[in-house]
Amino acid sequence: MSPSRTRRPIITKAEYFFPQDIIIKKRDGGALTKEEIEFFIRGATDGTFADYQISALLMAIVWRGMSAQETAWLTDAMMRSGEVIDLSDVPGIKVDKHSTGGVGDKVSLVLAPLAAVCGVKVPMMSGRGLGHTGGTVDKLEGIPGFKMQLSVPEFRQILQKIGAAMTSQTPKVAPADRKLYAMRDVTGTVESIPLICASIMSKKLAEGVDALVLDVKFGKGAFMKTKEDARELAQTMVAIGKVSGKPIRALLTAMNQPLGHAAGHTTEVIESIECLKGRGPADLMAVTYALTSHMLILGGVANDEAEARQKMEAAIEDGSALQKFRDMCVAQGGDPRVIDDYGLLPTAKTLLEVKAPTDAKGFICEVDALKCGQAIMALGGGRVSLTDTVDHAVGIADLVKIGEPVTPNMRLCTLHINDDVNGSRAERLIREAIKFASTAPTQESVVQDLIQ
Amino acid sequence: MSPSRTRRPIITKAEYFFPQDIIIKKRDGGALTKEEIEFFIRGATDGTFADYQISALLMAIVWRGMSAQETAWLTDAMMRSGEVIDLSDVPGIKVDKHSTGGVGDKVSLVLAPLAAVCGVKVPMMSGRGLGHTGGTVDKLEGIPGFKMQLSVPEFRQILQKIGAAMTSQTPKVAPADRKLYAMRDVTGTVESIPLICASIMSKKLAEGVDALVLDVKFGKGAFMKTKEDARELAQTMVAIGKVSGKPIRALLTAMNQPLGHAAGHTTEVIESIECLKGRGPADLMAVTYALTSHMLILGGVANDEAEARQKMEAAIEDGSALQKFRDMCVAQGGDPRVIDDYGLLPTAKTLLEVKAPTDAKGFICEVDALKCGQAIMALGGGRVSLTDTVDHAVGIADLVKIGEPVTPNMRLCTLHINDDVNGSRAERLIREAIKFASTAPTQESVVQDLIQ
Repeated sequence: MSPSRTRRPIITKAEYFFPQDIIIKKRDGGALTKEEIEFFIRGATDGTFADYQISALLMAIVWRGMSAQETAWLTDAMMRSGEVIDLSDVPGIKVDKHSTGGVGDKVSLVLAPLAAVCGVKVPMMSGRGLGHTGGTVDKLEGIPGFKMQLSVPEFRQILQKIGAAMTSQTPKVAPADRKLYAMRDVTGTVESIPLICASIMSKKLAEGVDALVLDVKFGKGAFMKTKEDARELAQTMVAIGKVSGKPIRALLTAMNQPLGHAAGHTTEVIESIECLKGRGPADLMAVTYALTSHMLILGGVANDEAEARQKMEAAIEDGSALQKFRDMCVAQGGDPRVIDDYGLLPTAKTLLEVKAPTDAKGFICEVDALKCGQAIMALGGGRVSLTDTVDHAVGIADLVKIGEPVTPNMRLCTLHINDDVNGSRAERLIREAIKFASTAPTQESVVQDLIQ
Repeated sequence: MSPSRTRRPIITKAEYFFPQDIIIKKRDGGALTKEEIEFFIRGATDGTFADYQISALLMAIVWRGMSAQETAWLTDAMMRSGEVIDLSDVPGIKVDKHSTGGVGDKVSLVLAPLAAVCGVKVPMMSGRGLGHTGGTVDKLEGIPGFKMQLSVPEFRQILQKIGAAMTSQTPKVAPADRKLYAMRDVTGTVESIPLICASIMSKKLAEGVDALVLDVKFGKGAFMKTKEDARELAQTMVAIGKVSGKPIRALLTAMNQPLGHAAGHTTEVIESIECLKGRGPADLMAVTYALTSHMLILGGVANDEAEARQKMEAAIEDGSALQKFRDMCVAQGGDPRVIDDYGLLPTAKTLLEVKAPTDAKGFICEVDALKCGQAIMALGGGRVSLTDTVDHAVGIADLVKIGEPVTPNMRLCTLHINDDVNGSRAERLIREAIKFASTAPTQESVVQDLIQ
C-alpha cells in the first residue's frame, strides 16, 4: 500500500527529510542513519518534529528496536541537545556510577567519598526519587544546608578540590531526553531497551565523565523485573560505551529486598554514615565495594578487584573515607555535625516497632522491596509526581533481612512516622512485604554478573 | 519491565481509563474492549486523549492489528463522533457505492441514475480528488450550477424526489475520522487495514444507508497495489458490515490502466453521459454494471445478476437512465443542457494529440494508470492538498486501451491543455505510461472477485 499524501519538506543541512519518512522507515524495520536520528532529535527540540510524530516514532522504536549503533547515535544526539560539561581541565580520570533505581539504595552516599579518597574523580549528577524508588538528591538534601543545585563552576570547583561533587540534574542537560521521557511516560513507550539506554547515557555522558560504572538492578523492587531484561539493558549500555569511546562496566545486582536495613531519607543517611564508620550491613557493603572497585580500576588507581578492595577497606578503617564525606558536606554547605549527632537530621515524631506475631517461627523468606517502597510513600516519604515535596524524617529502619531466623514477637522493623494513619497504612504494607518460612531460604548473592 | 509512572485518571461513565493503559494493551497485542475504543474516540474528539497519545495508539494498531469486532466498534465510535443522518423516513432501501479510488473512475456518475431509475434509493456522499485519484464531487462541480454541498434537508428531499442525491461530505460527518486521517497522513500510520476500513465505513454508515457495495481497486493506479491487499481490505469491510447489521458486498476490480478512455473532469463527465446514451466503453460499463447489479440485488429490486442486467440495459436503451441524470442535474441546480451540448462544460484552450512513433507496431501492452493520474496533475487538474483548486477543463480523452493493435503515428490520446509547458510535461508522462509489445498481451478481466 502506498497512498498518495500531502507533504511539506523540512530542509536540513544537506538533505530533505520528512518526519513521516523516518517514522515509516523504522515502522518497516529499517535502520535509521545518523543524519535521520539527528534530524529527529533536533526536530523534537525545535518543534519541526511534531509531538504526535515523536510518539509515533517512539512506538515504532518499541516495536522494531534499534541497533547498538543507532542507539549510540541517539544517545549522542540527545546528549548534544543541551549543555555538555567539559571537565577536561580537572586533572584525573572522572568516573561516575549510575543505578537503575531501587529501594534502600544509598550506595552513592558511601561510594562517592570512598572512590574519591582512593584517587578517582567522581562528578555525580543525580535524580530525585519517583514512585517507590528513592533518589540521592532527596537523601542528601535531608542534611541541613546541603546544596544539591550547584552551578557548573561550583560543581567543577568542588570536584577539583574534594575529588567528588554531587548535584541534581539541571534542565540544561539533555533537554531532548526530558521531552522524550515525559512523552514516553504517557504513550506506552517506556519499555524499550534502546530508549532507556539513550535516556540514561545521554545524561551521564553530558556530565563530562571519562568512564562509567552501572548498577543494573533486577527483581521485585527494580525497574527490570527479570535478570534477563537487566542483562540486555546492561549489554546495550556497555555497547553504547564502546561506540562512544567511554569504558563502561555494568554489574547486575539483586533488588528483591531493600539494600541494607533502612529506607527513607534520614534513616538512609544514618545508615550511609554507619557504612563509612565501618559498621555497614553486609549486602550494602558488598554492592558498594563491587561498584567502587570497578570505578577504581576504570579510574586507573587499582589494577584489579583485590587491590581495589584493599584500598577501600583501608580508607574505611583509617577514617579517611568518612573524612572525605565530611569535606564534601562542608564544601556543599551541609552541616558536618550530623555525622556525629544524627539528631540534627530531620527527625520523625514517633517510632513504631512492627513486631512478628507471638507464634512466629522459622525464617524470613521474603522482604518485598516494592511493598517497602510503597510503605515509604504511604508515610509521605515518596513522590507521586516530580513536583511533590517529600518528608525527609519518615522511613524504615532496623529492617530484617531474608534468611534471618524468626522468634516470637521479634522486631521486624522500626517505622519513623509523623502521622498515625499513615503509620498504620505503612505497617500493613510492611506486614504484606515480610513472609516467613519453616526452612531457611536459599540465599541469593546480591552482586551477580559483571558485563563489560 | 513495569516502570513506576505518574498518572492522572480520566473519569468516564463507569470506569477509569488512562490513555496509556489502552495504548499499552494494544502495544502488547491485546484486544481492546468496546468501552476502551469509545473512550479513545471520544477522547480524540474532546482532547482528553492527547494528539501524541492518539498517534502512539495508531502505530500500535498498525503493529498489532485489530479483530473484525474491534474494527466494527472503532467504525461505530467514529461514525457516532458526528452527525448520523437518519433516512428512515425516505421509503425504499437505501444503497450506496464506494470506490477506494482510481484514475478515470467516473462510475458513480453513471451508476447513481442507473440504480435510481431501477428503483434503488441512492444517497451518495462523495469526496474530492487527492493526489493522482479523482473525486466525484469535483467532476460534477464541472457542470455549471451543479451544487454539491447540500444541507441534510435538501439531501433528503432530493433523494426522496429523484431517487438519488449526491453531495460532498460535510465536516459534521465523522469528525473523529477527519482528525485521525490528518494525523495518520503525517505519522506513517496510513497502512493499516482496520484503520482504512473504519475510516471508509464510519463515513458511509453515517449517511444512513441500509446496504453498501464496495469497489476495491488494485493495481498501479490504486491505493492497494496487490490483489491480496485488496482482498484483505474487502473481507474486513464485509465483516464489519456483518457486525453492523448492514449487508455489504465488495468487488475486486483492476486499476492498472485508467477506466474508459477519459481522465480529468470535463472529459470524464462527457464519457459518463456517453455511457448513459449507450455508447460507454466496455471496461467502464463492465464495472458499472457489476457494481450496480449488486446494488439492485441488495436494494431488493432484482433477484440475481441476470435480472439486474436486463433492467439496467433496458434503462440505458429506453433513455430513462439518461433522463434520471437530467432530473438529478435539475434538482441539484446544474444546467441539464450540457447533456446535449458538451461545449457548455469548461473547455480547454488547446487540444494536443499524442501520437505513436512513426515506426510503432505491435500492441499496446501497458497504460500506467498512476502516470496518467500524474499527467492530469501536471495539467493542473489534480490536487496536492485538499485546499488546492482544480482546473475542470484539462484532461485526457481518446486514450488507447491495453491490447489495441498499434499502427505508425496513431493517436495515443488527446490532451486537453490550458498551458503549453504543463502540456509538455503531461505528454512526457503519457509517453512513459504507454508501452508497446510485439505480441498481444494477455487481457485481464477488469471485474474480478466478489466478496460477500
